Amino acid sequence: MQLKIVFLGTTGSIPTPKRGMPAIAIKRGGELLLFDCGEGTQRQMVRAHLSPLKLDAIFITHLHGDHFLGLAGLVQTMSLQDRRKPLEIYCPAGEGERIRTFLRIPHYTITFEVRVKELVPGAEVVRNGYRILTAEPEHSVPQLAYALVEDERPGKLNVEKAVSLGVEPGPDFAKLKAGEPIKLPNGRVVKPEEVVGPPRPGRKIVYSGDTRPAESIVELAREADVLIHECTLAEDLREKADETLHSTPVGAAEVAKRAGVKQLVLVHISPRYEDPKVLLEQARAVFPNTIVAEDLMELEIPLK
Amino acid sequence: MQLKIVFLGTTGSIPTPKRGMPAIAIKRGGELLLFDCGEGTQRQMVRAHLSPLKLDAIFITHLHGDHFLGLAGLVQTMSLQDRRKPLEIYCPAGEGERIRTFLRIPHYTITFEVRVKELVPGAEVVRNGYRILTAEPEHSVPQLAYALVEDERPGKLNVEKAVSLGVEPGPDFAKLKAGEPIKLPNGRVVKPEEVVGPPRPGRKIVYSGDTRPAESIVELAREADVLIHECTLAEDLREKADETLHSTPVGAAEVAKRAGVKQLVLVHISPRYEDPKVLLEQARAVFPNTIVAEDLMELEIPLK
Repeated sequence: MQLKIVFLGTTGSIPTPKRGMPAIAIKRGGELLLFDCGEGTQRQMVRAHLSPLKLDAIFITHLHGDHFLGLAGLVQTMSLQDRRKPLEIYCPAGEGERIRTFLRIPHYTITFEVRVKELVPGAEVVRNGYRILTAEPEHSVPQLAYALVEDERPGKLNVEKAVSLGVEPGPDFAKLKAGEPIKLPNGRVVKPEEVVGPPRPGRKIVYSGDTRPAESIVELAREADVLIHECTLAEDLREKADETLHSTPVGAAEVAKRAGVKQLVLVHISPRYEDPKVLLEQARAVFPNTIVAEDLMELEIPLK
Repeated sequence: MQLKIVFLGTTGSIPTPKRGMPAIAIKRGGELLLFDCGEGTQRQMVRAHLSPLKLDAIFITHLHGDHFLGLAGLVQTMSLQDRRKPLEIYCPAGEGERIRTFLRIPHYTITFEVRVKELVPGAEVVRNGYRILTAEPEHSVPQLAYALVEDERPGKLNVEKAVSLGVEPGPDFAKLKAGEPIKLPNGRVVKPEEVVGPPRPGRKIVYSGDTRPAESIVELAREADVLIHECTLAEDLREKADETLHSTPVGAAEVAKRAGVKQLVLVHISPRYEDPKVLLEQARAVFPNTIVAEDLMELEIPLK
């Protein structure tokens, strides 16, 4: 099953010609999720050939304007397109009413049910084949970081061994992979553990939202395939980053390193870095497998 | 004095890669005005090298999402940039509270005074060297069309004649242009009407907002230099345009023709017209001096 990240907006707070407001799409099989929905997200979706009608759920990290002000426009557009499927919008605990009020501001008729749901840090949303986990970053307003964690996949069937034991390819193979023992015509019972390897872990993507480097993100990102971490300012502005509760490249890279993630992707880049090379170099000195996201960049996560 | 229109967003309802949500900037001398402020307007301003900090006033036609949802993000960005100058936001009567509520949704500290002011059709806002007039278009929600009408300029001084009468170039020239008589050393009084031509009319720009072709727009646009008129759908979809209270090219062009404007500029182009040629041809058959606006297109209005 395909798992793909599409970076729709990668700027920090103020848009630039190259970087739109924060928004990250994740496509998993036929599902489409959005993490943050800054102003202009619907236009970035058009550019990325992602139909808003396909959206299943939106996860908002916090209610600074740059992270959610695209919601009402997106809801208007989906209504003009006659969406009928309900849409779930998740947000930090206590923030639901602000979003509901926001969605009531424009004159329009919403053609589908919008389910605004609040989540606390440590919450788990069980979805089809994966879970969304939350943690509390360290920022100035109610805020959540999110992890998408796929369910384990069944272990690999040792076909050669199964056939040598007398198992016929077909339904019995499927039963064994699903963890059920089967009985051969000769009375011999074949147990799954004889021919099926250990379950294979699913993939894991973590998005920090806005935060200074935080222990909670290290925990949430443990062994993730991809950690998408904010990186607003370079090291020479570390003091300003500390004051405004944002991260520098070294801060983000240390979180990635301590969490043992495979890859670090930096987002929420201050408009002052037209060329983000300095951020990249500073991060790579601590965590080599780092990239800086660009708008409309796609990243596919291979199966383990 | 320079008078320039910058088309920031020219789409109808839904953005496309080429067309952003409705917003039109007008630069007049050192003043910067915005007419409508759809989602993404602040990013289009960055692209057009227009600083939000320079904004003097915003005029909103109506509260369908595509025409005003960029306001809160713009206010956040100006606050991050530490704006201190008050900002006036004008909207149709009865809609002020919606805008005020909208601006209270995100978590931020607004660093300047936002003055939301309601206007009725027929209102006149007197500003420095020009007035903003309003009219009521024919659409589905409270709505205003706006006209920017410059004050008359003093007539032209006939320098040759003034000198022949014995007037010295300098302060006496200025007095005559300002409409004051002057007294020559020989006792002769020179009256302004002897040497100054009739006052020259100021320039006039009219923006329809969303509307079906309306008598009120014909009246408001009388002899305008530029009529910016919505043109959502082509003639084959005239029935749909009528139902949704939008205009077709012929409808917009007939308004322009009857109002006797100099130039018609079509905006609010439905996303279905990737190439707006069909709209242009249909409009030009009725009113030849028509263009279709593109995002970031600039139009300078010469002095009369």
